[in-house]
Amino acid sequence: MSLRSSMPEIEFWFEFASNYSYLSVMRIEGEAKRVGVRTLWRPFLLGPIFRDLGMETSPFVLQKEKGAYVWQDMKRQCRKYGLRWTRPSTFPRLSVLASRVALMGAEQAWMGAYCRRVMELNFALDEDINSPTQLSPILADLGLSADEILAQAQAEPTKALLRTQTEQARARGIFGAPTFFVGTEMFWGNDRLDDALQLAVGGSA
Amino acid sequence: MSLRSSMPEIEFWFEFASNYSYLSVMRIEGEAKRVGVRTLWRPFLLGPIFRDLGMETSPFVLQKEKGAYVWQDMKRQCRKYGLRWTRPSTFPRLSVLASRVALMGAEQAWMGAYCRRVMELNFALDEDINSPTQLSPILADLGLSADEILAQAQAEPTKALLRTQTEQARARGIFGAPTFFVGTEMFWGNDRLDDALQLAVGGSA
Repeated sequence: MSLRSSMPEIEFWFEFASNYSYLSVMRIEGEAKRVGVRTLWRPFLLGPIFRDLGMETSPFVLQKEKGAYVWQDMKRQCRKYGLRWTRPSTFPRLSVLASRVALMGAEQAWMGAYCRRVMELNFALDEDINSPTQLSPILADLGLSADEILAQAQAEPTKALLRTQTEQARARGIFGAPTFFVGTEMFWGNDRLDDALQLAVGGSA
Repeated sequence: MSLRSSMPEIEFWFEFASNYSYLSVMRIEGEAKRVGVRTLWRPFLLGPIFRDLGMETSPFVLQKEKGAYVWQDMKRQCRKYGLRWTRPSTFPRLSVLASRVALMGAEQAWMGAYCRRVMELNFALDEDINSPTQLSPILADLGLSADEILAQAQAEPTKALLRTQTEQARARGIFGAPTFFVGTEMFWGNDRLDDALQLAVGGSA
């Protein structure tokens, strides 16, 4: 067994439009490395899952009171974690293109940095994340061939992969993001990242 | 200004039927005393609030996936906090009588112990919490006149008080339990108890 495969692992299911996913995307690589856990990146789309559960959009939009609370909470959470925060003027943002690119990077060394940059576009800079114009400079900054990646991201195999990944999320019982799996144990929400990592390194969650 | 009124305070809004309120009821008095914060107990009913928000019962019942997750999460959370846990065979349990008694105890020294005993009935012993037969021994164990308290709890003024308190919860924007207030800052969920206490003692949340 290789060193790589014997490292403890955490599956990280997230959505670029999700504000609580923002917190985990910014934190997970540092936290996981610190305790010797490998992050398995699993971008997916929440929209189809919400629709399947009978909701037309985010519960933070559908439930006025919860929505009002969430923005108050995010401000405090970002302060706690030392993250920048701007309430997005569009919520939830379309994230299909950003997610397709992420699927291509999931096994690559640039994945963490790419995801953090996209999340900052959305939740720190209040910019859209669904067009080549926005994503191209990020990929170029990472030393990648932006045109090539964006072309592949919009080709049919990648589109199909995102659909499959989202169906898999649904089949695993995911109803929100971020969601973590350590083996079959599911953890929902950024508030459970530490517990999930602790389970991954052999403690109890 | 008396010492009592100059102590920092946390408002603790909770519901005896709510499993995440169980965690906070068991923890809050110890945690708050440790940092020198006075707990203001605010029992209320979630049922009318859920109905007002268009839900017939708990979202953990209405949303199958979230419900399945919550019981997995509760088991782990109780292990983390060293609390007993039995998944209630009835959920959510009727909590009207337990709440009315709590309203009478809210300013009394026995409040914390009473609430913990009721929560253990529900979430450790899997017993109902809505009849004098169940609550009487708890009150007697606390050295109180159970008959007198239960009679007052079922008198019209106490019933009216519970309705008022629940209306107040709604007016404050509460949509779930537990909810904490430190001044006007609202914190939702047992996961935010520590942040709320930190704000109460003058830190940032």
